[in-house]
Amino acid sequence: MIKTDINGDIGIISLDRPPVNAINPELVSDLTDALDSFKSNDDVNGVILQGRDGCFSAGLDITHLFPKDRSYIEGFWEDFSSLLLNMFSYPKPLYSSIGGHCPAGGTVMVIMSDYRIMSKGNYFIGLNEVDVGLTVPYGIGMVFQYVVGNRNAEDLLLKAKLISPDKALQVGLVDELCNAENLLDTTLERIAVASNLYSPQQTKTKQILREQTLSIVEQNFDKDAQLILDAWFSEHGQQRLEVLYSKLSRK
Amino acid sequence: MIKTDINGDIGIISLDRPPVNAINPELVSDLTDALDSFKSNDDVNGVILQGRDGCFSAGLDITHLFPKDRSYIEGFWEDFSSLLLNMFSYPKPLYSSIGGHCPAGGTVMVIMSDYRIMSKGNYFIGLNEVDVGLTVPYGIGMVFQYVVGNRNAEDLLLKAKLISPDKALQVGLVDELCNAENLLDTTLERIAVASNLYSPQQTKTKQILREQTLSIVEQNFDKDAQLILDAWFSEHGQQRLEVLYSKLSRK
Amino acid sequence: MIKTDINGDIGIISLDRPPVNAINPELVSDLTDALDSFKSNDDVNGVILQGRDGCFSAGLDITHLFPKDRSYIEGFWEDFSSLLLNMFSYPKPLYSSIGGHCPAGGTVMVIMSDYRIMSKGNYFIGLNEVDVGLTVPYGIGMVFQYVVGNRNAEDLLLKAKLISPDKALQVGLVDELCNAENLLDTTLERIAVASNLYSPQQTKTKQILREQTLSIVEQNFDKDAQLILDAWFSEHGQQRLEVLYSKLSRK
Repeated sequence: MIKTDINGDIGIISLDRPPVNAINPELVSDLTDALDSFKSNDDVNGVILQGRDGCFSAGLDITHLFPKDRSYIEGFWEDFSSLLLNMFSYPKPLYSSIGGHCPAGGTVMVIMSDYRIMSKGNYFIGLNEVDVGLTVPYGIGMVFQYVVGNRNAEDLLLKAKLISPDKALQVGLVDELCNAENLLDTTLERIAVASNLYSPQQTKTKQILREQTLSIVEQNFDKDAQLILDAWFSEHGQQRLEVLYSKLSRK
Repeated sequence: MIKTDINGDIGIISLDRPPVNAINPELVSDLTDALDSFKSNDDVNGVILQGRDGCFSAGLDITHLFPKDRSYIEGFWEDFSSLLLNMFSYPKPLYSSIGGHCPAGGTVMVIMSDYRIMSKGNYFIGLNEVDVGLTVPYGIGMVFQYVVGNRNAEDLLLKAKLISPDKALQVGLVDELCNAENLLDTTLERIAVASNLYSPQQTKTKQILREQTLSIVEQNFDKDAQLILDAWFSEHGQQRLEVLYSKLSRK
Repeated sequence: MIKTDINGDIGIISLDRPPVNAINPELVSDLTDALDSFKSNDDVNGVILQGRDGCFSAGLDITHLFPKDRSYIEGFWEDFSSLLLNMFSYPKPLYSSIGGHCPAGGTVMVIMSDYRIMSKGNYFIGLNEVDVGLTVPYGIGMVFQYVVGNRNAEDLLLKAKLISPDKALQVGLVDELCNAENLLDTTLERIAVASNLYSPQQTKTKQILREQTLSIVEQNFDKDAQLILDAWFSEHGQQRLEVLYSKLSRK
């Protein structure tokens, strides 16, 4: 479900759960372990997260999650948001190589990283939570604002926009576009500038820059779980999720 | 003074106090009522605020207000800033159609909405409070920063700049420009993307994104009233307001 | 070490410590005095800070500071950060004319001012603290984010980037570029728009816009001194500073 590799001093984590890297409890757990392992590995000065060709991740595994009860979803959400918190406060440079579609939970993961490079192509990226009956919780909303700014955050989130790589570059949701065949090499080139300077001082500087946002995320950690659960199990949420579930189950 | 209309599921509020929609207590009160009425109307999923052809609003009615005493201005300011707070925390999509001039109090109202479309033309928009002897209070300053960012906010507010539609688009004070004849239709088209997704989850997401700013606005609500009153009745403030009053009274 | 002049109602402070305006205790003290003197001068409505032709400032005087002990550095840092705090909360318009190189401590000073105009040319500007073994402390980090936004701040600071005037304009680290021969005249022209409106209301508005950031800076004032001292006297910090010290001493 997760493959790891080391290139020089850069750890590479590849999400590999065909066909679309749908996020289920096992993927969350394996990704958490991979990040922890590179964190404590003194030979690793930076980490790249990538998906599969054509798809970084399609988001949460609704087929698996929709039939589950409230306590199951609660446990899953707690693990998933702990993973996100670990990513946003990761002490080493953490870059994303986005080689294709990256909606919903895919976007949620990559905004936690330091830098996003996306393949040019007919792909989409964005947070469509509001369209599937979910609230964008504090943790994800604050980081999204941190990345794209207030006006873009409102425009994209309240309209549940899934956008092209070109538009994502324009609003700052990704930092750079490149051709699919150069994606990993370009990401390795970019992260080298940061990983060459990896030091306690760099880590502390990153923590200082993210501290205001991180503190709001942490303060609302429990409240966010309730927001997600309430929306998920609301009448409106169940209706929207069922539409999605039926569509995905037919595939 | 205020006309309301409903187009599909969109409520339209038109300021109509000739010649320039100067903001007086009655306009504040009527606009508050119109917003409240659309808020509680289950057939309305979004609201558009527009002014008159060629003028959204010239700002506060100085001719009416300047001769008044401190307690009158205090009451007026309290009502006006409650209106602004209602707009910034409006639960439904709230868009502005700006068909002309929109200085001072005009700008103050439209920055509270979610999205601003302005007519191309020889119009101006901006906050010139500092030039008329007033302080930009916390509530308005924080929302202005939320919309245009810190650097643009300083540049525009400390220099009391009134700017063209083109410049307003460039600094992010408006989101889009269009020809006057298409203004309302374009706004209806844009708001539809948001109003089609109107739901408790969308409302909650908007609230989460605005909460940090709203909280500073609310904390400084009383302090702001004192700031405005102190500036208004300071020697410098009275001098600047009298210049404005004389100019307006001669018309 | 500091020359002052008055042009109309604008105070001009010129850093003049050949060859590169390296920041030592005396320069900090003289600059503090010059700013205080213009602050209390009722004939001065705005202040311009400039360096030498080709070099605004190369940053801290490492040749002087590196051999010193912890208590000396602590005293120096306290004075330097008090100066920065005075600049960020300066009640009058404070503009920077950047006529050349402006790395490290040079950048730290100019980001505290209201507006930055830089000469076109083969110069560099930026904060390379992380590359010389130092942490970017809260005070400097928060103001840097205030000026260039979160994403640019991370990209520039974690990679310790020194950038060209063109790139600095693009990311918002400077507000405008001009030819060296017009630099002071252009800055005088720009500051006039603000200084003509200098009033208690303008000062209060500036204070309101900067208050959130200033408050974080002040809260972390003591913690920042410890961060700098710990990084300075860490093994990694001493190694990096010694490299710099040797390079500078050979000149």
